Amino acid sequence: MSSKITIIKNGHFLVPGSDKPVLSGYMTLENDLITYIGEAEPAVEDGAQVVDGSRLLFMPGLVNTHGHTAMSLLRGYGDDMVLQTWLQEKMWPMEEKFTGDDVYWGTSLSVLEMLKGGTTTFLDMYDHMDRVAEVTEQSGIRAVLMRGVIGLCPEEVQQSKLAEAIAFARNWHGKADGRITTMLSPHAPYTCPPEFFMKFVQAAHDLDLPMHTHMSETRHEVEQNVADYGLRPVAHLEKLGMFTRPSLIAHGVHLNDEEIGILARHNVGVSHNPGSNLKLASGVARVPELLRAGVKVSLGTDSAASNNNLDMFEEMRLAALIHKGVSGDPTAVPAPEALLMATEYGAQSIFLSGVGRLAAGMKADFIALDIDQPHMLPHTDLLSHAVYSASAKDVEHVWVNGQQVVKHGQCLTLDEEAIRRKAQETFESLLKR
Amino acid sequence: MSSKITIIKNGHFLVPGSDKPVLSGYMTLENDLITYIGEAEPAVEDGAQVVDGSRLLFMPGLVNTHGHTAMSLLRGYGDDMVLQTWLQEKMWPMEEKFTGDDVYWGTSLSVLEMLKGGTTTFLDMYDHMDRVAEVTEQSGIRAVLMRGVIGLCPEEVQQSKLAEAIAFARNWHGKADGRITTMLSPHAPYTCPPEFFMKFVQAAHDLDLPMHTHMSETRHEVEQNVADYGLRPVAHLEKLGMFTRPSLIAHGVHLNDEEIGILARHNVGVSHNPGSNLKLASGVARVPELLRAGVKVSLGTDSAASNNNLDMFEEMRLAALIHKGVSGDPTAVPAPEALLMATEYGAQSIFLSGVGRLAAGMKADFIALDIDQPHMLPHTDLLSHAVYSASAKDVEHVWVNGQQVVKHGQCLTLDEEAIRRKAQETFESLLKR
Repeated sequence: MSSKITIIKNGHFLVPGSDKPVLSGYMTLENDLITYIGEAEPAVEDGAQVVDGSRLLFMPGLVNTHGHTAMSLLRGYGDDMVLQTWLQEKMWPMEEKFTGDDVYWGTSLSVLEMLKGGTTTFLDMYDHMDRVAEVTEQSGIRAVLMRGVIGLCPEEVQQSKLAEAIAFARNWHGKADGRITTMLSPHAPYTCPPEFFMKFVQAAHDLDLPMHTHMSETRHEVEQNVADYGLRPVAHLEKLGMFTRPSLIAHGVHLNDEEIGILARHNVGVSHNPGSNLKLASGVARVPELLRAGVKVSLGTDSAASNNNLDMFEEMRLAALIHKGVSGDPTAVPAPEALLMATEYGAQSIFLSGVGRLAAGMKADFIALDIDQPHMLPHTDLLSHAVYSASAKDVEHVWVNGQQVVKHGQCLTLDEEAIRRKAQETFESLLKR
Repeated sequence: MSSKITIIKNGHFLVPGSDKPVLSGYMTLENDLITYIGEAEPAVEDGAQVVDGSRLLFMPGLVNTHGHTAMSLLRGYGDDMVLQTWLQEKMWPMEEKFTGDDVYWGTSLSVLEMLKGGTTTFLDMYDHMDRVAEVTEQSGIRAVLMRGVIGLCPEEVQQSKLAEAIAFARNWHGKADGRITTMLSPHAPYTCPPEFFMKFVQAAHDLDLPMHTHMSETRHEVEQNVADYGLRPVAHLEKLGMFTRPSLIAHGVHLNDEEIGILARHNVGVSHNPGSNLKLASGVARVPELLRAGVKVSLGTDSAASNNNLDMFEEMRLAALIHKGVSGDPTAVPAPEALLMATEYGAQSIFLSGVGRLAAGMKADFIALDIDQPHMLPHTDLLSHAVYSASAKDVEHVWVNGQQVVKHGQCLTLDEEAIRRKAQETFESLLKR
C-alpha cells in the first residue's frame, strides 16, 4: 500500500518548551506519523495532500487524563450540592441503571464533544468498557481504557470484577491500530480493601500494565484513610505496592510535602482536575509545589456530571489561572507549562511515548484552531491565545493517528445527529426506569 | 411610524430567581421592549416577525460591569508577570501611544467580541471616550461610559482631565436612543489625591450621575492606603463622600467584614472580576460573604490584556466555581445566583433599571444559545448548562434594544473583516512607533 503524505503550508505551530515555541512554517505527515516540522519548505512528492495552514494555529491534540465518559448522560443532573447528597441521591441511583447501550451512547456523546473540542486522547475509567472500546474504534480517537473497580462487595463479586478488568485489559491492549491501550484501575483506596487492591498490583505486574486510581480528592477521604489504616493515602498505596508499577493518580488535592516527595521519587503522575475539584468544593491542588518537586502533572476533566463540559481548553486555563490567584504569584503555572500539562505531560502520564508533541517521529495527533477571530486578535503571542483566550469551539480541524477526524468543526467519523438524539432519549429513559 | 412586533415561538427562556427559572413558551417584543413572556401562546397581529425558538435557549444579554475595551489591542502582550513589571514594561509604554483612532479600533474589536459572545451591555472606563461612544452608536450595543482619570499630575492637568470627564458625561448621557449612559470615574484612591477625588464627588452631585472606581484590587494597595491616609480604602472613600452618590467599585478583592458592612449600608455595588484577579494573582474576592451581606455583586472581564478574552460566560462560570473550591462549600454561588450576577445584578449595578431580565416591560436585550450541541445535551437543566457548560461561541443570536445585532453568529452592525484587519495593523503600528 502506498503512503499517504500530507503537507501543511504556511501555518503557525505550537512547540512549547522548545527554543521557538511558536514556529511559522511547514509540517508534513506520512501515514500516522509527523515526518517534518520546520521553517523551511520541504520537498514533497507529487500527489501529496496540501493543507493551507494560513489563519490556523496548529498544536498537539489535547490529552484528557481522567474521566468517566458515559456520565455525560448526567450532565447538569444535580449541581451545587454537598458531595454525599449528590452521589447518593443523584449519581448512584441513575448509574445503577446504566446498561451497555447507555454507556455506548453516553460515551459517544462525550467522544463527539471531545473530538470536536480538540481532545485527541482520553483516559476512561468506568464499567461496560467493551462498549467504550467500541466507540473508540469507530470514532478514530485515541484512548487509554480501564474497568474501574469498586471493591465494597462480597469476595466472589470482587473476584469476578477483577477478572473482568483483567480480561478487558488483555483483550483490548494495542487494538484499533494501536489507538487503544489499557491500564488496571482499582477505583480508590477507600473503595478497595487493601488485600483486594494488592490483587490489582499483582495483576498489573503479570500483564505488565500501568495502574490508575482516585486518591486524596477530599480532606475527609484522607482523614478516613488515616483512621482506617493508620496512614495517609500516599504512604498507604506505597505500602500496597502500587508504585512499583508505572502509576497515575487522579486528583491529589490534599497532599503534604512528604507525600509530594514520595510521588516524585516513584515517578507517579498526578491528573489535576481543576474544574471538578472546584465544582465539588474539594479544594485546590498544590500544583506549583508538585511541579517544583518534579511530579508529572497532567489535566483531566473528570466526568461532565461534575464539570460540566469536556473542554480541555477550560481545564488548561483554570490550571494557569487558579494557582496564580491562590498562591499570589502571577508567574505560577505560566502559559507554556499549562500547555505542556494539557499535551506532552498528559501523554507521558498515561504512558504514550509517541504522542503529545509536534515533532518528526511523533504520532500525527494534532489540531488546528481558527485564529482569525476577534478574541484571537491581534496576533501578539499565539501560545498565550491558545491558553488564555481559546475554547473548544475554536477548533477547526482535528487529526488522530494521521487521520482527519474533524473538518471545519464537523466530525467525520461519528453520526452526530444520531448521537445527539440518542443521548437525549437515553436520559429520558433513565428517568423513567 | 408603525410598531415592529416580533414573536418567538417554542423557545426555552431563563428567568433566574423566579418560580419557573426555565420557562418553555413564547416571548413577544414591540420595538425596544419585551411585551410578553409566558407558556401560553399570545395573540399577535398579522405581519409580526416570527422567530422559531426551538433548539434555542433565550436568556437576558450579559452585562459586563468593568473593563477597558481598547486594551484588547494588547491581548497576550505580556502574561505571567509580576504586576508592576507588567504595567511598567508592557502596558503603560504601549498605552501612552494610543491615539483616538487606536482606541476606536481596539474598542471595535472588543465590542465585536462582546456582541458575538452574548454581552449586550458593557461598562468602559478609559480615555478618548468620544471614540468609544462612536463605536457604541454604530454597533447597537448598550454601554455605560466614563473617562477614567488618573490624578497623579500637576493641578492644571488634573483640572483639564476633570473638565474632559464632565464634558463627556454631559454630552453623551442618554444618547444613541438611550443606549449610552455615563458615570464619573476617578481611576482609584491610590491614583487620585483626596482633594481631587472629592471634586469628582462634587461633579457627580452637580450632574446627578453615579460613580465608579477601582478599589482594593491588591493587598499592597490596601496597605499603602493605610500608610498614606490612615484608613483602609472603603473608609477612605466613605470619608471622601463617594458613597453619597450611587456607586460601583471594581475588584474589591481585599475587604474585611467591617468594610463589607459599610458597602452594604451604602448600597455600593462590587464588580467582581474573577479572571483578571486570578491572572494578575490579586487574590480571590470574598463573594459569598458579600452576597450574604446583601451587597450587589456583578461580573466584569476587566480588559483583555489581563483576562485574556471578553467571554462573560467564562466569568460567570469562574464566579460559580472558584468560591466553592476556595470556601469548601459546594453550595456557594449556585448557578442561578451566578447567572443573576451576570445579568440582572449587573444591570442594577450600573443603574439601568429596565435591563437584565426577561419580563414584560423590560428592554429587549437578550440572546439565544444553540442548545442542540454535544456539550449542551442531554437537556437535564438548561440553566445549569448556561452557567456550567456554555461559552461565548454558543451564542447564535443577539438582540439589543429590540434590534437584532447578531444573527447565526454573524454581527449585523459592524464590519468584522475590517475590524480584524485594523486591529492587527494597529498593534503592529504601535510596536513600531
